[in-house]
Amino acid sequence: MSETRWLSESEMAMWMAYLSATHLLERRVEDQLKVDSGLTHAQYEILARLSEHPDGQLRMTELARRLIISKSGLTYQIGQLERRGLVARTTCPSDERGVFAVLTEEGSRCLERTAPGHVAVVRAFLVDRLTPEEVETMRQIMTKAVAAMEAAPAGPFRSSPPGKSPG
Amino acid sequence: MSETRWLSESEMAMWMAYLSATHLLERRVEDQLKVDSGLTHAQYEILARLSEHPDGQLRMTELARRLIISKSGLTYQIGQLERRGLVARTTCPSDERGVFAVLTEEGSRCLERTAPGHVAVVRAFLVDRLTPEEVETMRQIMTKAVAAMEAAPAGPFRSSPPGKSPG
Repeated sequence: MSETRWLSESEMAMWMAYLSATHLLERRVEDQLKVDSGLTHAQYEILARLSEHPDGQLRMTELARRLIISKSGLTYQIGQLERRGLVARTTCPSDERGVFAVLTEEGSRCLERTAPGHVAVVRAFLVDRLTPEEVETMRQIMTKAVAAMEAAPAGPFRSSPPGKSPG
Repeated sequence: MSETRWLSESEMAMWMAYLSATHLLERRVEDQLKVDSGLTHAQYEILARLSEHPDGQLRMTELARRLIISKSGLTYQIGQLERRGLVARTTCPSDERGVFAVLTEEGSRCLERTAPGHVAVVRAFLVDRLTPEEVETMRQIMTKAVAAMEAAPAGPFRSSPPGKSPG
């Protein structure tokens, strides 16, 4: 095992602030959605992603990929949304892989009612605190992090490639 | 209700990248900790926060505040750590408020074994992707967001103060 490079003071301060902000923000977002609509953040994101498509539908596997949620997690959330009549599942006879989630009219109305309060929270506690330059820097940082993780094999991280003797 | 200020294209791109990065990173961190130590991220943070104190102990209420976790959530996590002998709970007879969580020797060893792999993940997928300027910008952004949330009353966000007629 190579020597651990511990985080520097400024790196640690950034990481701790990131963890705190993320936990606080997630709690604020969840609180708001719960009161306004009874939705969880995951459920809100499902409705929002579906609404971006003209026909309001997406293949389940594609939805799971975009939301970065496991298939079982998505199946659970979609079940909850289906029970409330906000989403329906359909299959495509000509396409074996094809189970789609579809936004219903009620789901569309629920999203329309809920979105303004949700955006207000995201603005109040994050977006409106940032300068346009900070928004751009943060977009770049987060995009780089996503790319790094999408490029790395899934599963636990290994700092040395398999087969290479530890140094 | 005032007119909704929807997110601009660049603000939305930042928010989506932030959500994706956060979900992916949390999954990577959890995977690593699970394989290396069987700890959840919340449990790792508990051990790490306790280890920062010379006597390895912190009042439960203070620990909950630092970790941004509910009291019931903390009680559950501490129970899990206690069962594995990594943390103990003690009370202070002279202090009514005083239930403390204490890092045990086994907890300390567990943290020492686990920390290098954890830091490697945080470096590989976030810290090492950033320039020193980006680290500093991100620290500032996240610190501002934390301050905004700590200053706002808990509970669902209201865009207009109570009593003020919507306009």
